[in-house]
Order: sequence, then C-alpha cells, then structure tokens
Amino acid sequence: MRITSSLPDNGILFTVDDIPGVLWTPAGGVGPLVLVGHGGGQHRTAPGMAARARRFTDAGFAVAVVDAPNHGDRPRNPELSRLAESIPDRIAAGESRSVLVAELHGLASRQSVPEWRAVLDAVQDRLGPGPVGYWGVSMGCGLGLPFVAAEPRVRAAVLGLAPVHAARETAARVTVPVRFLVQWHDELVPREESLALFDALGSTEKTLHANVGGHGEVPASEVDSGLRFLDRHLRP
Amino acid sequence: MRITSSLPDNGILFTVDDIPGVLWTPAGGVGPLVLVGHGGGQHRTAPGMAARARRFTDAGFAVAVVDAPNHGDRPRNPELSRLAESIPDRIAAGESRSVLVAELHGLASRQSVPEWRAVLDAVQDRLGPGPVGYWGVSMGCGLGLPFVAAEPRVRAAVLGLAPVHAARETAARVTVPVRFLVQWHDELVPREESLALFDALGSTEKTLHANVGGHGEVPASEVDSGLRFLDRHLRP
Repeated sequence: MRITSSLPDNGILFTVDDIPGVLWTPAGGVGPLVLVGHGGGQHRTAPGMAARARRFTDAGFAVAVVDAPNHGDRPRNPELSRLAESIPDRIAAGESRSVLVAELHGLASRQSVPEWRAVLDAVQDRLGPGPVGYWGVSMGCGLGLPFVAAEPRVRAAVLGLAPVHAARETAARVTVPVRFLVQWHDELVPREESLALFDALGSTEKTLHANVGGHGEVPASEVDSGLRFLDRHLRP
Repeated sequence: MRITSSLPDNGILFTVDDIPGVLWTPAGGVGPLVLVGHGGGQHRTAPGMAARARRFTDAGFAVAVVDAPNHGDRPRNPELSRLAESIPDRIAAGESRSVLVAELHGLASRQSVPEWRAVLDAVQDRLGPGPVGYWGVSMGCGLGLPFVAAEPRVRAAVLGLAPVHAARETAARVTVPVRFLVQWHDELVPREESLALFDALGSTEKTLHANVGGHGEVPASEVDSGLRFLDRHLRP
C-alpha cells in the first residue's frame, strides 16, 4: 500500500498496485473494517463520500472505498468502455436497461473482485486481521455480490437496489447475513427483479428493507440501521 | 374503566363496558401509548404477553392490549363463531385459507374497531391525551388496518403478516407512517398477497421488513427495531 496523501478525520488516500482507494479509521482506534462499493458514476472521493464515511467511523468502524473499474481516477478498460457506450443504442433498440446494466456490472466485477481482495490484503496488513463487512447498493451490489460470494473474510453485507438478472447463481453462493435494500418505486430496477435477487441469496439470515421512493431516495435511517446490523455481526 | 385487578410491573386488568383489557405503564412515568392487537388464538394475558409488554415499557411506552372478539374472556359472537367453524370444511372444499381468514377478520373488525376506540377513550381518560401507536401483525393486522384507518389519534403503526384480500380499500385509507413485517416463507400468507398489502397502504412513509422463515418466526430484533420506529414518530 502506497499512501499518497492524508485527509481530515483520520483519512488517507492510497494506491494498491494501481488501484486508488481511501481509508478512514475511527478516532478511538480501529474497529471492524467495512469495505464500501460505491454506486455507478461515483468514486472514492465523490462529494458526500467523506460525510458518509464519517457516519461509519462515528459508529466505530474503519471504512475503505476503492474506485471501481472505469470510475474516478482509474484508466479506462476498453472492453468495459465499449459495452458502456453501446448501452444507449441498445436501449433505443428495445433492450432492457436493467439487463444491460447487469451485464456491464458482471463484466466489471471480473476486474473488481480480484482488485478488492488485493486491497483487503493491504488494508489488513495495515490494520490487522479481523471480520470484515461489505456495504454496496446499486452498482456496489452488482460488483459486490461476486466479491462477497468469493471472499470468506466478509462476514456480513448490506446490499440492494439491484436486479437478479444473470446474478442468480452468484447470489446463491452468498451465505453470510445480508441486509438487502429495496426502493419500492425504483425507476431503474424492476421491483420483481429486485425481490427475486433477495430471494436468490443463499444466506439463511437475510432481511429485506423496502422503502417508499425512487432509486436515489433510500432514507437516512437505513444507514444507522445498516450499521447496527453490521455491528451485531462483526463485533466479537 | 373498571379496574378488576393489578399485575406485577405496573400492570392492571380492566374492563371498558364488557371489553376486557390490560394496561402496563413504564416505571418512570407515562410515555406514548401503544395499543397492541394480539394474534389469532392469543389473548390479553396469553403466555409471553407480559414479557413482550415489558419490552415496550422498558422502552418508555405505555401498552394496552384488549381481548379480540371471540378471544380470551369474551363471550362468543355467534355470527363470528359460525364463520370460523365453517372454515375447515370450506378449505377442504378448495377455498383459500388466507381468503377465508381475511373474511373472518373483516367481520370481526366491525366489532373490534368501535371497541378499541372506546377503550382508547377510557385509557386516555386515565393517562391523559397524546399520540398513540398501534402494533398488530397477523390477526392484529387484519383487525388493526380498519382501526388505524379510522382513528386519527393513531400516528404510527407496526403491521404485517397479513394478505391484501379484500383489504385494498381499507389499506389505502391508512396514511400514517407504517412499519410492515413480512415473513419470506410465510406458510399462512402468500408472499404476493403480503407484498400487495404493503403496496396498497396509502402512507407516504412506509417501510417493509422481510425476514427469512415462517409465520411465527419474526426475529426478536424486529421488536427493538419497531420500538425505535414508534419512538421516532410518537415522541414530540
């Protein structure tokens, strides 16, 4: 891990190989680590990310965010770029937006899953070992599902705002406790597809929280509630 | 209100007209009142009811439970008894259990709604006025929906484990914030019917919590979570 600069509130910008990330630790020492997978179009230092991270550190968690493939400071992956650029025309030709986006996330996750595992190694070299939580909705869920399924250090996950398309088998391999967020009037994810993804999760302990409103209108109370959920599962 | 006896933990058994109820108040004085509609086959002093009430009073709420029609110490309502007794044969003849039970709850609520309003008058005469919460799942939701829709003193409700059958219009008249519980593998309430009842609620602020397991397997954490929800909406 190469530290490139430091931020207020115990934050550091870092790279692992060429993957840019940010890590915040709580003022009172290190609690359980939560990896956050940001949403589409966002990045590790997007406006609001520091404020959101502050809620995690105030609750005693360390929190790490990594720029997803083709986001933030990452060089463009040509295959991902071609697929992303084809989406508007394919929607115009009648294909389903949510199916196409799921295809994009499936392709991006082939890059992001090994990257996040490498970053987790490096962050744990710095902070020490221990149980890890994952928090990612929307694209953070699309890319997070195969990561949570593959990475045994992840012991609990907050996921959601994503459809089941093509993710059924991956979801079945997720077995840790999951909090799953649904927006009842999500304009980007068809309700049935969202409920079907929750249904497909292999976890014996999983809870769905559905709230009124569109894709971007998750109520703030779900952050506190999700942190309590992670706390229950990550604290010894 | 006629007090018939007192119970440990600041509890009293009472009647209002001939309706038997129980009221617990928190040790530190009176907080917001929550009316609890018990489940089918239960009653105001069923085993576990005092322990559950204790969790409410520990959280600072006063809590009142009334025997539902044809439950506990109530005399039998012949029309309700006839309908209830016809259900096994009608299920054997191919009718849907959940439709029949919803029909039973619809009939029972014609009696229970005015009863609960009379009890609420009497309890508020004793404790003073203020915002009221309602908590009722399963039969407590079937009977509670028309009560919450009709009673403006109720400012927030925990409902669920019930189907939409015949309740769509009543649900649309519920406009207060609702926490709605679903059991993902509910053997008594078809999942689609349960999701459709949540959808039909008229409330602009409503949250569905779905957990793994059958009708009777709501996790204990939903009680704490529901009490936090009521607290947010009933405290000034």
